[in-house]
Amino acid sequence: MNGEYSILENIKNPSDIKGMSDKELEALCAEIRRMLVDTVASTGGHLASNLGTVELTVALHKSFDSPEDKIVWDVGHQAYAHKLLTGRYSSFSTLRTENGISGFVRPDESVHDSFYEGHAGVSVSQAAGIAAANAVKGSKNFAVAVIGDGSFGNGMVYEALNHAGSSKSRLIVILNDNEMSISENVGAMARYLAAVRSKPEYYRFKAGAEKTLRKIPLVGKSLAYHLVKLKTLLKNAMYPSLFFEDLGFRYIGPIDGHNIESLCEAMDGAKTIEAPVVIHINTLKGRGYDYAESSPEKFHGISKFDINTGEQLTSGDSFSAHFGKTLCDFASKDKRICAITAAMSIGTGLEEFSKSYPERFYDVGIAEEHAVTFGSGLSAGGMIPVFAVYSTFLQRCADQLIHDGALQRRKMVIAVDRAGFVGEDGETHQGLFDVSLIQSIPNTTVYSPSTYSELSRAIYNALYKDENLVVIRYPRGSVPDAGEFCQTSGADYEIIGDELADIAIVTYGKLYFNAASALEMLKEKGISAKIIKLHKIKPLLQGAVEEAAKCKSVFFFEEGMRAGGAGEVLASRLLEKGFGGSFSLTAVDDEFVSHASVSRLMEKYSLSAEKICEKIISEVEQ
Amino acid sequence: MNGEYSILENIKNPSDIKGMSDKELEALCAEIRRMLVDTVASTGGHLASNLGTVELTVALHKSFDSPEDKIVWDVGHQAYAHKLLTGRYSSFSTLRTENGISGFVRPDESVHDSFYEGHAGVSVSQAAGIAAANAVKGSKNFAVAVIGDGSFGNGMVYEALNHAGSSKSRLIVILNDNEMSISENVGAMARYLAAVRSKPEYYRFKAGAEKTLRKIPLVGKSLAYHLVKLKTLLKNAMYPSLFFEDLGFRYIGPIDGHNIESLCEAMDGAKTIEAPVVIHINTLKGRGYDYAESSPEKFHGISKFDINTGEQLTSGDSFSAHFGKTLCDFASKDKRICAITAAMSIGTGLEEFSKSYPERFYDVGIAEEHAVTFGSGLSAGGMIPVFAVYSTFLQRCADQLIHDGALQRRKMVIAVDRAGFVGEDGETHQGLFDVSLIQSIPNTTVYSPSTYSELSRAIYNALYKDENLVVIRYPRGSVPDAGEFCQTSGADYEIIGDELADIAIVTYGKLYFNAASALEMLKEKGISAKIIKLHKIKPLLQGAVEEAAKCKSVFFFEEGMRAGGAGEVLASRLLEKGFGGSFSLTAVDDEFVSHASVSRLMEKYSLSAEKICEKIISEVEQ
Repeated sequence: MNGEYSILENIKNPSDIKGMSDKELEALCAEIRRMLVDTVASTGGHLASNLGTVELTVALHKSFDSPEDKIVWDVGHQAYAHKLLTGRYSSFSTLRTENGISGFVRPDESVHDSFYEGHAGVSVSQAAGIAAANAVKGSKNFAVAVIGDGSFGNGMVYEALNHAGSSKSRLIVILNDNEMSISENVGAMARYLAAVRSKPEYYRFKAGAEKTLRKIPLVGKSLAYHLVKLKTLLKNAMYPSLFFEDLGFRYIGPIDGHNIESLCEAMDGAKTIEAPVVIHINTLKGRGYDYAESSPEKFHGISKFDINTGEQLTSGDSFSAHFGKTLCDFASKDKRICAITAAMSIGTGLEEFSKSYPERFYDVGIAEEHAVTFGSGLSAGGMIPVFAVYSTFLQRCADQLIHDGALQRRKMVIAVDRAGFVGEDGETHQGLFDVSLIQSIPNTTVYSPSTYSELSRAIYNALYKDENLVVIRYPRGSVPDAGEFCQTSGADYEIIGDELADIAIVTYGKLYFNAASALEMLKEKGISAKIIKLHKIKPLLQGAVEEAAKCKSVFFFEEGMRAGGAGEVLASRLLEKGFGGSFSLTAVDDEFVSHASVSRLMEKYSLSAEKICEKIISEVEQ
Repeated sequence: MNGEYSILENIKNPSDIKGMSDKELEALCAEIRRMLVDTVASTGGHLASNLGTVELTVALHKSFDSPEDKIVWDVGHQAYAHKLLTGRYSSFSTLRTENGISGFVRPDESVHDSFYEGHAGVSVSQAAGIAAANAVKGSKNFAVAVIGDGSFGNGMVYEALNHAGSSKSRLIVILNDNEMSISENVGAMARYLAAVRSKPEYYRFKAGAEKTLRKIPLVGKSLAYHLVKLKTLLKNAMYPSLFFEDLGFRYIGPIDGHNIESLCEAMDGAKTIEAPVVIHINTLKGRGYDYAESSPEKFHGISKFDINTGEQLTSGDSFSAHFGKTLCDFASKDKRICAITAAMSIGTGLEEFSKSYPERFYDVGIAEEHAVTFGSGLSAGGMIPVFAVYSTFLQRCADQLIHDGALQRRKMVIAVDRAGFVGEDGETHQGLFDVSLIQSIPNTTVYSPSTYSELSRAIYNALYKDENLVVIRYPRGSVPDAGEFCQTSGADYEIIGDELADIAIVTYGKLYFNAASALEMLKEKGISAKIIKLHKIKPLLQGAVEEAAKCKSVFFFEEGMRAGGAGEVLASRLLEKGFGGSFSLTAVDDEFVSHASVSRLMEKYSLSAEKICEKIISEVEQ
C-alpha cells in the first residue's frame, strides 16, 4: 500500500526527526508500530520488546546526536525502531532473512549500531568503555546504554556499575523497566524495582515529610513512634535512588517511557550532570498490539503469526518439550531432581516442571554463572541438579563448568538446548561453540542425541549411570522427517548402513538425518557406505575409533566449530593409531555464522544431505 | 621444638574447641598464627589472608557444627587455620608440596571442606545451593559462605545475593572485610564498605536523631535545612544495612573480626533469624606478623621468605615484568594504548603502567567479564585496550571473548599470564585450558612466545600488525636456563636443529626449552631431529603443517589440555593432507592437575627434556 508509511519513508537519517512537532512524532510512532506488527507477522522476530521501545527510540534520536553520541542496545533485539530511523526502512521487509537486515544490531549494517549485540547484560560495560575512551580523548560526546530490567539481574551489569560509578565520564544508562526479562522477572532486584514503580508518593516526599514533622512533639512519649514513621517515610523517599547512588550513579526516574516529552526532558537533564546517570523509565512490553500486550512472553521472540488472531503459524513438538516432559517424569519418582533455568523456563521446556515441582525449580534470572554454581551447591547438598540453557548462553559459564562443575566430582547435568545452527537469530545465537568449550573439561560426559528416544536415554544415563558433570546437547526445534535409515538404537555409538563398507560418514546430533539421507543417495548411485553415529561424543569411545580405523575413507561432518570439535579428536586418535586412509572434516571453520534459515546454513556450510553426498562422490571418484 | 604447639596438637576435630575457655582460645589463636608464619616461611603460600582469619575460623567452628553445617570458603586460600582445626595439623608442614596438603580447600582432604575452591566469588552461590537443598530435605543445618570484600565486586556474588535474597533458606554470608582484594580494592562497593567502616555513629543513630529532632522548630524558615540534615542522619543510620536489605538479606555488623566473643554472638544471633543473613566483619590482613600487616599485598601469595626480615628468598626477572615494561614503552609513544586488570596490577606486571599512565589504566576489581567488555567499549572508542589476566581466570570471560571480543572485529589484546603449569597452587590455578578455550574463536590470533624478545615481538604484532582479537599467552616466572639451541628468530614458526631430519618435535611456549634440551640429548645419542617451534599458534600456519608433513615421525608436546589444543589441530590437518608418517601427541589428557612443583609436573606429564627424549627414542627404536 503506497503512502501507508508516509512519514517513515522520508526518514533517511535520525537527524530528520529533530525538527518534528509533537504531533508528527506521535504519528511517526504509530507508523512504526504498524510496520513492526506487519513485518514480524511475516518474518518472525522479537515483537513485544520492540513495541515497548518506540517512543524511547524516537526520544533517544531527538535528544542525542548519533553516531557521535553512541547508543548501545543491550541484547540488541529491541532496536527495530532504531533500524527504521537509521536508514533501514526500505530494506526492513528483509528482516532476519539471508543477506537481509539482522534481527539484532550490527555495525556493518549502520554507523548508528555501536556493537554486534545478542547477549544480555553487556551494554553498560560497552558504554562505560566508550565513555572512558571519550574521557581520554577529551571528547564531549555521550555513551548511552539502553538495558531492560531483566538484564539487571546479570552480574556483568553490577560489575560495570560498580566500576563505572567511580568515574566522572559521560555515561548514561537507561533502565528500560517493563517488568519482564524473557520469562517473568525474578530476584531481589526485580522486587526492588517493583517497589519503586508502585509508589508514586516518592515524588511528593517533601510535602509528606513536612506534614509528619509538624506532628512531632518536641519531646515526649511518642517520639519513638514518630521517629520510626519518619524513618520509613524518608527511606521510601530516597528508595529509588539509593541503590544506584550507592554505586556512584545519579538517578532520574521513574519516567513514563511512552511520553516522548518526558523522556527528552530526562535525557536533556542527564546530559547536564557531571557524573554517570541512570534514567529509569517504565514501558509496556507489546504496547499498541493487544495480543502482544496481553501475552508479552509469547510475543518476545515469535515465529510468523496471523495479525488478526495473534496465532503463530508454526508450532508442534520439539526437543525442548520432550526434555521438559521427560524430566518431569523422572522428577515424579525421584525427589532429588531439581531444575534450574536462567530466565528461560518456557524456551527450555521447563514450564510444566516449574508448576509441578515449584519447591525444586529455580529460575535465577539471566545469571548463567550463578546457575551452574548454585547447581554445584545443590549437588553438594545431595540433590541432582539439571540446568537447562541455550548453547550460546552456555558460553557465559565456561569457568563455572570447569571450576564448580567438573572439578567438584559431583553429579550435575547440563541440558544444552539450541545446539547447532539456530537460523534467523544469527551470529550471536548460533549454538556452535559448546562442543569445543566442553571438550577440554575433564570428568565430563557429553551426549548429542539425534532423536527424542535418544534424548530420553541420555537423560536417564545422566541422572543414574554417569558420574560427575554430564552434558546433553540437542537442537532447536523438532526431529526432522527421517528416512528408512533413521531408526537408531541409542547406543553410545552405532553403525548404520553397510557394515562392511570402507567409506564411513562420522557424525552426531541432528546432522545424522542429513547423513542418513546422503547414505540413501549414495546407495542409489551404487556407492556403499556406512554411518558411524556418535551418541556419546565425549569421551570418544575406543570402539568408534576402531570402526573408523577399519575404513579406507572417513568423512566427519560436524554442525559446530571445527577447532576443538569432536572431529579433531577423532583425527588425532586415528593418526596416532597409524590410520593410513583418507580423512576429511567438514565443520564451521573459523568464522561466525550469520542469519539465514537452518536449511540454507546446512547447504552453505556443506552439511546438507546433497553436499554430504557430493563430497563423498568427489573424493571416491578421484 | 616439641610442645611448641601443645594446644594444636591435641585438636583432632573442630568439636574439640567447643569447650575451651576464652583464655584457651586466645592461646590457640596465638599458636595458629605462629604455625602459619613458620610454615609459610618455608613452603610459600598465602599468608596475610590466613593471619587475618584466625579468630574468624575459631568462632566458626565454635558456633557451627561442621560438617553438618557447611562452611564454604570463597577462593579457599584463607582456610589454613581451618585445616589446622580439622585434623590436618600433623601434615601441615607438607603444605603445597606434591601429595601434601593443598593450599586451598579440597573435599578429598577432609569432610570439613565443602568444595574444591580457588576462584573468587563462587561461595555465595555454592552455599545458597546447599541451603536450598537443605530446605528441600527439611534439614535444619546451616550453609555459611565466608567471602572477602575484594570478591564482592564480582558479578557472581550479586547474581547469588539477588537470587538467594528471595529465599527463606538457612544461608549465612560472612563478609570478611579487610579493605583489600588482592591489589587495593576498587569500585563503588569498596567505597560503600569504607563508608560503613568509617562511621561508628551508625550504632548510635537513635540518640543522634533524637537530639536533632529536639532542635527542629514546629514550623518555620529553617525546616528545609533541618530536613536535609535529618535525611542525611537517617540515611547514614540505615546505610550499612540498606544495600543488603535491598537484596533481601538481614544485616549484622560491622563486627570486630578479631574478637571471638563478638563473632560468636553475631553468628549465634544470625542462626535465630528466619531469613538469609549477612554478617559484616572487619579484619586486618596479616594480623600478628608485622611485615605482613604493613605489606599485606606482598604477603598475599608469597614464596619462601625469611621470618626475621620478611624478605622473599626468590625473585628476579619474569615474563610479567617484561610484559609490563614493554607495554609502558609502547604506551609512552602511543596514547591509544590502555591497560586493564582485574585486581592483579602487581601480579601481571602493570604497576608501573598504573603509575605512569593512570588516565589510561583501569583496575576493574575481580570482574573479568566486565574487563573484556569494557575493553570492547574502549576499542569502539578508538583506543587499543590490553587486558592482562591469568590463564585460569581467563576462563571467566569465555563468552565475552567470543561475543564482545572477536565478534566485534575490532582490536583488543589479551595478555594471558601464568599460561601452562603454575605448580604449587594446584588444580584451580593451572593455566591449562586457555588454548582450548580460544582455539574455536574466529577472528582471533594467538601467540605463545618462548623468550622475552619473542614476547616483545608478539606485543608489537598485536598492537600494530594483527587485526581483531589478539591473545598473547606466556608462562609464570622467568625464561629457564637455555642451551645452545635456544636462540630463536621470533618468526611465526621456525625450524631448529637438523633441517633435513625426518623426526620433528612440534611445540610452543616455555616447553620449547625442554624440547631444545631433548634435541641435544638425542644428538648425543646419534639421533638427528628438528624442532618445529610455533610462535603463532592460531591460526596454525600452512608452512608449519607442510614442514611437519615432510617428516616421517611427528611428536607434538603441549603444556595444556590435549582436547581442543594445538596438537589436535595439526593432527587433523596432517591427516587431511594424507600424511602417512607416525604421529604422537603428548599433553594433559582429560584430567585436572594437582599441586606439585612445575618441574615435577613436567616430568609427571611426560613433558620434561628427559621424557621427550625417551618418548622419541622408544618410538624410533621400535
